[in-house]
Amino acid sequence: MAVDERAERFLKACRGEPVDRTPIWIMRQAGRYLPEYRELRLRHAFMDVARDPSLIADVTLMPLRRFDLDAAILFSDITVPLAGIGIDFTIEENQGPVIQEPIRTAEQVERLRPFEPERDLPWVLEGIRRTRDRLEGRVPLIGFAGAPFTLASYVVEGRGKKDFRATKELMYSQPAVWHALMDRLAETVARFLRSQAEAGAQALQMFDSWVGQLSPEDYDSFVAPHSARVFRELQGAGVPLIHFGTDSAMLLESMARAGGDLIGVDWRIPLDQAWSRIGPGRGIQGNLDPCVLFASPELIREKAHAILRRAGGRPGHVFNLGHGILPGTPIESVTALIEAVHEFRADTQPGWL
Amino acid sequence: MAVDERAERFLKACRGEPVDRTPIWIMRQAGRYLPEYRELRLRHAFMDVARDPSLIADVTLMPLRRFDLDAAILFSDITVPLAGIGIDFTIEENQGPVIQEPIRTAEQVERLRPFEPERDLPWVLEGIRRTRDRLEGRVPLIGFAGAPFTLASYVVEGRGKKDFRATKELMYSQPAVWHALMDRLAETVARFLRSQAEAGAQALQMFDSWVGQLSPEDYDSFVAPHSARVFRELQGAGVPLIHFGTDSAMLLESMARAGGDLIGVDWRIPLDQAWSRIGPGRGIQGNLDPCVLFASPELIREKAHAILRRAGGRPGHVFNLGHGILPGTPIESVTALIEAVHEFRADTQPGWL
Repeated sequence: MAVDERAERFLKACRGEPVDRTPIWIMRQAGRYLPEYRELRLRHAFMDVARDPSLIADVTLMPLRRFDLDAAILFSDITVPLAGIGIDFTIEENQGPVIQEPIRTAEQVERLRPFEPERDLPWVLEGIRRTRDRLEGRVPLIGFAGAPFTLASYVVEGRGKKDFRATKELMYSQPAVWHALMDRLAETVARFLRSQAEAGAQALQMFDSWVGQLSPEDYDSFVAPHSARVFRELQGAGVPLIHFGTDSAMLLESMARAGGDLIGVDWRIPLDQAWSRIGPGRGIQGNLDPCVLFASPELIREKAHAILRRAGGRPGHVFNLGHGILPGTPIESVTALIEAVHEFRADTQPGWL
Repeated sequence: MAVDERAERFLKACRGEPVDRTPIWIMRQAGRYLPEYRELRLRHAFMDVARDPSLIADVTLMPLRRFDLDAAILFSDITVPLAGIGIDFTIEENQGPVIQEPIRTAEQVERLRPFEPERDLPWVLEGIRRTRDRLEGRVPLIGFAGAPFTLASYVVEGRGKKDFRATKELMYSQPAVWHALMDRLAETVARFLRSQAEAGAQALQMFDSWVGQLSPEDYDSFVAPHSARVFRELQGAGVPLIHFGTDSAMLLESMARAGGDLIGVDWRIPLDQAWSRIGPGRGIQGNLDPCVLFASPELIREKAHAILRRAGGRPGHVFNLGHGILPGTPIESVTALIEAVHEFRADTQPGWL
């Protein structure tokens, strides 16, 4: 039955099993491009939504009422665990999180508290439980967290991150402080993701959104061991793990070694080449440029099908954008994309690679 | 004699000839990290400097008084030809150029005037002549221009370019307007670069700084033909051509096909892998992360030598950062970097790749 297929499609693809059609979800699918989300945000500040289990469920479900998506993703933000470990921040409109006192010294790292999910973020875990209840198994729910490096870049820079200078300066000049900070963040991320799985998240994505700022050599020295620790500690969690980055074409081998059942890739590398770099035995998620959603439905379809042809019908592909959907994206474009992905049948397509 | 070697080192490397040591220059070497430049800018606005041949020469020569660099690069900005073709802009502090009326329609493109270097930018050409006079052959002078795509992204976006949405929307939705705009810009860039060579520039760099925002497929469709035209029209100019991009690991084959005697690469790809992608018969420029200059002299030396080992002593490598030097970079770091590059002898290094 179609409903059952939809419920299983995403998780099957994560496990590398054959599917009736390629599953699709969209990063930031519960976000500002949705009129109903913008309307809600007129009445509630971002952090008020992110701290209210009922509103978390409301927003998480919003895109599923409009679109034939194959997964839900928890409405939250990668910065939410920071307050629990003692890093104060505010979310500023059009600027993202601003850390009051950027973390740059050994003393500051030592003062960080261990993260306790049930103490620090009960509303997120309750939000997951309520969302699962309300989803009634229609599609799986994905939980997520920022990766240690991406969180570190926020807490070291403080605000803005144009060239990641402060982050790299800490890495290069005080490697012991850097690794101590990454240790704390890796522990935090692993605990947070595990608690999300225990609360009912059926897959977990770790966002290393800014990791593409690093040379491959620096990634291997300063990041990979900490990301690998997160995946190691989640091995018993029993849910698929997605390891996402952008600008990461030259890091894909290293990211795959660090862990993840699926590796997320952006549009800067053709999907088939990315999959070769990731290697056998793992899936891939991606990789349409979010800006394509500002084009015509015909071009959206053409570009989506080009990606699906590169995937070649091989099990283990989850369709997604290469980064979060942009504010201002037309609703009709999202509909057109999902239709284009779902209508595609690998075995009947001309121009097969 | 050492002075003669220094005068020839950069051009020899551009021609793929053996050199006594790897030449180095630094993108934005005449920029805000220099105290004497900041001091000058207290008295003169950016555009006042960029429009005064004598000040252009002063600033171009500033870094050469401090450092043992192997080339000078003209002090200017990639946006300077825009006013000549009828695109008004202002330079705003910490924001870069702001275009008053972003170009997004066929009518706007049709209204653009042909670029005439001697009419539109006489001060740049005179600045080149004066700089050459004052250099007295000590080191060669590099001229430059923005690439058609990078200029297009400025004039289409208007200000800021976080996700290049307007640029890509024009590309995808109005391809005829896009190609007409790129035609005009390619003509402008080719004329401007040729006039710089005629005025005395001894090498030319085309900056496609933002091209790494594109998928390889979009680069090939929307950018490569126009960049190739620029290089084709410069074939008779008789000076080496450098084709620079960032975030371009997956575009290197295409960029090399479009043209350039040297291809510039950032730090996101190891130099030897980049050179393999570029292919035989061409040189390479790069590729140290500018943030490394915030580390200790020891680490700067180690990272510079690692790049030189990857170059393997093969003729055709010009050392540079992977992008412009950052404001705030310590002067001592620049000295340390240049010493590290010049002291390196490929045939005596341990850890040879």
